[in-house]
Amino acid sequence: MRCASAAANVFRPGDVVLLRDVLRPSLAILSGPLRLPTDTEDKPPSVCTHRGEVRHTAILNAHPRTLVKSHTAGATFVVTFPTLEEFVNFRKRKATPIYAFDAAATVALADIHIDEREHTVFEFLEAGTGHGSLTLAIARIIHAANANLDKNAPRKAVLHSVDRNKDHATYGVKNVREFRRGLYAADVDFHAPSTPSEYLQSRLKSITDHGDSHTAFLSGAFLDLPSPELEVEVVARCLKTDCPLVVFAPSITQIVDVIEAVRAKNIQLSMCKVVELLPGMGGSMREWDLRRAVLRNPPDRKEEGGSESQEKWVCRPLVGERIVGGGFVAVFRKKLQKTRRDNAGQLER
Amino acid sequence: MRCASAAANVFRPGDVVLLRDVLRPSLAILSGPLRLPTDTEDKPPSVCTHRGEVRHTAILNAHPRTLVKSHTAGATFVVTFPTLEEFVNFRKRKATPIYAFDAAATVALADIHIDEREHTVFEFLEAGTGHGSLTLAIARIIHAANANLDKNAPRKAVLHSVDRNKDHATYGVKNVREFRRGLYAADVDFHAPSTPSEYLQSRLKSITDHGDSHTAFLSGAFLDLPSPELEVEVVARCLKTDCPLVVFAPSITQIVDVIEAVRAKNIQLSMCKVVELLPGMGGSMREWDLRRAVLRNPPDRKEEGGSESQEKWVCRPLVGERIVGGGFVAVFRKKLQKTRRDNAGQLER
Amino acid sequence: MRCASAAANVFRPGDVVLLRDVLRPSLAILSGPLRLPTDTEDKPPSVCTHRGEVRHTAILNAHPRTLVKSHTAGATFVVTFPTLEEFVNFRKRKATPIYAFDAAATVALADIHIDEREHTVFEFLEAGTGHGSLTLAIARIIHAANANLDKNAPRKAVLHSVDRNKDHATYGVKNVREFRRGLYAADVDFHAPSTPSEYLQSRLKSITDHGDSHTAFLSGAFLDLPSPELEVEVVARCLKTDCPLVVFAPSITQIVDVIEAVRAKNIQLSMCKVVELLPGMGGSMREWDLRRAVLRNPPDRKEEGGSESQEKWVCRPLVGERIVGGGFVAVFRKKLQKTRRDNAGQLER
Amino acid sequence: MRCASAAANVFRPGDVVLLRDVLRPSLAILSGPLRLPTDTEDKPPSVCTHRGEVRHTAILNAHPRTLVKSHTAGATFVVTFPTLEEFVNFRKRKATPIYAFDAAATVALADIHIDEREHTVFEFLEAGTGHGSLTLAIARIIHAANANLDKNAPRKAVLHSVDRNKDHATYGVKNVREFRRGLYAADVDFHAPSTPSEYLQSRLKSITDHGDSHTAFLSGAFLDLPSPELEVEVVARCLKTDCPLVVFAPSITQIVDVIEAVRAKNIQLSMCKVVELLPGMGGSMREWDLRRAVLRNPPDRKEEGGSESQEKWVCRPLVGERIVGGGFVAVFRKKLQKTRRDNAGQLER
Repeated sequence: MRCASAAANVFRPGDVVLLRDVLRPSLAILSGPLRLPTDTEDKPPSVCTHRGEVRHTAILNAHPRTLVKSHTAGATFVVTFPTLEEFVNFRKRKATPIYAFDAAATVALADIHIDEREHTVFEFLEAGTGHGSLTLAIARIIHAANANLDKNAPRKAVLHSVDRNKDHATYGVKNVREFRRGLYAADVDFHAPSTPSEYLQSRLKSITDHGDSHTAFLSGAFLDLPSPELEVEVVARCLKTDCPLVVFAPSITQIVDVIEAVRAKNIQLSMCKVVELLPGMGGSMREWDLRRAVLRNPPDRKEEGGSESQEKWVCRPLVGERIVGGGFVAVFRKKLQKTRRDNAGQLER
Repeated sequence: MRCASAAANVFRPGDVVLLRDVLRPSLAILSGPLRLPTDTEDKPPSVCTHRGEVRHTAILNAHPRTLVKSHTAGATFVVTFPTLEEFVNFRKRKATPIYAFDAAATVALADIHIDEREHTVFEFLEAGTGHGSLTLAIARIIHAANANLDKNAPRKAVLHSVDRNKDHATYGVKNVREFRRGLYAADVDFHAPSTPSEYLQSRLKSITDHGDSHTAFLSGAFLDLPSPELEVEVVARCLKTDCPLVVFAPSITQIVDVIEAVRAKNIQLSMCKVVELLPGMGGSMREWDLRRAVLRNPPDRKEEGGSESQEKWVCRPLVGERIVGGGFVAVFRKKLQKTRRDNAGQLER
Repeated sequence: MRCASAAANVFRPGDVVLLRDVLRPSLAILSGPLRLPTDTEDKPPSVCTHRGEVRHTAILNAHPRTLVKSHTAGATFVVTFPTLEEFVNFRKRKATPIYAFDAAATVALADIHIDEREHTVFEFLEAGTGHGSLTLAIARIIHAANANLDKNAPRKAVLHSVDRNKDHATYGVKNVREFRRGLYAADVDFHAPSTPSEYLQSRLKSITDHGDSHTAFLSGAFLDLPSPELEVEVVARCLKTDCPLVVFAPSITQIVDVIEAVRAKNIQLSMCKVVELLPGMGGSMREWDLRRAVLRNPPDRKEEGGSESQEKWVCRPLVGERIVGGGFVAVFRKKLQKTRRDNAGQLER
Repeated sequence: MRCASAAANVFRPGDVVLLRDVLRPSLAILSGPLRLPTDTEDKPPSVCTHRGEVRHTAILNAHPRTLVKSHTAGATFVVTFPTLEEFVNFRKRKATPIYAFDAAATVALADIHIDEREHTVFEFLEAGTGHGSLTLAIARIIHAANANLDKNAPRKAVLHSVDRNKDHATYGVKNVREFRRGLYAADVDFHAPSTPSEYLQSRLKSITDHGDSHTAFLSGAFLDLPSPELEVEVVARCLKTDCPLVVFAPSITQIVDVIEAVRAKNIQLSMCKVVELLPGMGGSMREWDLRRAVLRNPPDRKEEGGSESQEKWVCRPLVGERIVGGGFVAVFRKKLQKTRRDNAGQLER
């Protein structure tokens, strides 16, 4: 069993891989989808690095962590599948991404546990798609509901990712398809309505047209928009009871605006918490610099501390790097609605 | 479909629920598994809160976010399923837990994407089990591989959680079973060997006894131990190529010891990064205090700023809370091994 | 010379001292001013601790770091002069103080360097006085201008600390007088006008009445008020060119309001920077827990790691403490004013 | 009085000034000491900026915050005295400086309050001098003791700054002399012994030679050295009772080494606290980005949110900057020594 897997675990056409310079590990390049050369092209497909080209054929059929050399400059690279963080950071961008660990933390705050044993379809909303990094983070967490299903079976979970910018939708499709052999591609549908509310209202209309009295159809919603306060009302209407609305925003004043809107329009959301994702390496975390390095001692200290050049631990937070990522996340949950049947119960104010 | 789900989505016997005081939301109590009263007991099963008892029968068949009253003191509580964070924080403890968001961040650093389409079994190690919060976080991410399988089909992924303290193993089983109707219970096996290495060596022996030349069987390993440096050598031997070893430790010097051991014993691991999970609310994140509050203005400012008591935004990091969580995480990946077949290739130093 | 000093450096009547429990160093008590017993009182003056009373006579004439015992419970305390941080933290409070290191950082941001060689009087404003901790921090930095002056010589620098709450002013006087033998007492004047602007306008009027055309008289101003935006206009008018206005506020939205006011009213201030003092131990700093502690090893590890119980370093950020302090600080500087004489020059917008 | 001052407050020969580009305020240049042109030079003295040269004569006699133009490119700059932070950051460097706010926080931790009314000389040690930024921060806090003294009166406080690198000493002299018209120059003596201990031992010997039995002469010591653990023993011997030793180090393991040395050699120091100065802008503080900026709204939102392009607040921690500064600071205080006279007392362990 494992042998089969080990044999299978080599790079194949279509894979996107990361090449990291073994001598300068901070230099890394993401390939395009690997492919075999065709008869008609003059130049074989290659990854273009800062230190020469590496042919796709040198990577195809190799195991992850194989060392390859650039054809031209003779530099050595270790080849791996990119982590989600590397995929987001090294991918060409049209928009500032939500950094991978910020996206993971944002999704953790939503606390989604889809029970695939339930007989229902779990629908989620993400607005806007942007770079697609939050999309991948959400898809990963809802993926379980669709895993191991028969090819023709209907999906049990779907993420609707909307962005009025058609480029973002196109880009999102491409990103999701090219990450880890499209593992999460079937979990997401992309849409390009002019606003998130437009999309949701057309969905609500279609549900009412079917005579369904339970119009709430979302098991969770994520907003990453310049003016999220304009969308919360319709989103809240679509959320099922106790399901989360998560708002990500770079500025705390955007979160203030959302809370103000919830209050002013008496939107049926209960605020759970507001957190800051601290800027740094993403995910609020701090990277540390841990290594042994040679420090020079004064000559007359030789007899005390040993040799003149002493190897010591460097053990400190990493500095000199640019601060990236960060942002503010507010988590709300839909209140229980009074219905004819539940008339007797008390409701949250 | 959704109607059925909505009807089904009520609390059932066996559910563990959270009761939050509506007037003082920071006060919350986790119930034991809900159950119906039996004929033989004098007192019906209840949740004991700081403001009186709430009978299980008042919760059973109610929807999440229903308001219930304590039988004795007349306090009102909103009832929900606990989030993973609430489950970890409010559960009775025998050990300091890894806080839920710290556990989520630790798992995110491992960057696990199990492709359930592959024909293999993915095995993971966690040592030690402790409070079981990291266990739940890992189980959640490997769960997809086992989702929607036929009852009798073999699992495609399994987490081996080991702890020499038999209480921890027992407690881990109970925790995983009682969280969200046991959603992740089938994903974890608990063991109580005297050391993690003992468990791994027995596994290695059994593989070699079967004549299998590929002895590496772990797709990932997580260590949360007082002396992780004593286990890394055997763990590294069991890891498949490019698979992650993640070490969580409260003190940075424990991480120093691990790196020292890898160096001294020439263990085939490549260090990827060391990060700090900042203490605070867990997950390195900072909670903010965002609300409107009344501030009093000096009397002679009435004409300028409006009324005497002005409502203003409080918009600041939350203070006065105890700092919890935090820790250091080191991520390593297994290097590619020279085998008879791969003899020609270059290897990472 | 030094001998004299060493002899003199003992506790004297009037000194306020800190007693720290040697067995539980986190327990500390601030004394009132020490004094000799009088003939008329039944009970000798004592410091009341959680573990019995310590008589003032046991402390008077002792050197700092002397160990004293409580009369009743026999606990041992080390006696020292309180640091500014200890004085602020352990002093009885009527208002939330600005923590000592937050105050020090706030003053550092103002970058005050008084050149006592100049022939002028340097006046500063602080509004409001509150607990007096920022007062002490400012006094300390302007103290140089008044140091070593003849008793009857006029002061070269003075801090005007205003608070409409007369209790705060009274309390401020007492705090400044009782810290380190009143070292900074002569550097501060306390006032209790109904608003800071009222105080400043009376000063401006008095200057104009004297026929002085240069009305700006402040070399720096510090605001710690609920609505600082109401005072900036008058404060700016009183500031000399290039002198700093520093606004401290717990909420970032208060800083937003100040910047909005500067913009809307075209106030002649240039914004230099906005910084956050991170909550924690004050001063944005994080305290670490560094000590050796005994960790138990599994029994079968004895041969590898040495003895069963191994002493290891604890080396991590301090947790379990309450997060205190923090806040936001905005620094502005007064722009150059167009005057008849300077007519030709260009001015900052 | 004030008029005189206002007239005097113009730039004079010898002043070092900062020129900040009004259109791109992040671009700033520190001048050399200003001077008048001489007859013999072809080119008048100028500040060379990225956008042309500014003649010293355009700055001399101008007030701070005057706008000047570059002679060649016509760019406009606002001229001020540099703050201590700007002086440290923009000065040409031979060593990585301790950032100005880190230095201020380090000094605040020492809690120095020199009482100039006492009849003694207060001596301090700094090792090593390095860039001179900690030197300036210490000098500023001890300056009060020497302020307003007669020209020929002996100093009441002196900082001995030692560095085995003679360049550092030379550079330190120059830096202290050129900051704010040499305000703190008389407060510091620079030495270049081969180790700090060598300097201290020569001082101890000279004291003993004079027959003085109280050899401790330091009121405080600051170490910023690669191996501070080699110097603590001698430093501790020189410290007066209860006076602080402050160790600054980039790596936490250097602090571990110092504590280990204090323990192993039973050095008479009591550890007060270990803190981390968080990297960022220095001083552990975080800079925020607060400004109004135009965000574009979707066209169909015009009726709701007003015009198409809406001006909104940007209100977030500053990102994209390099993380600088940071470090660890340990504060110790000298224990009370048993002397013949104090024989009876108990001593701190």
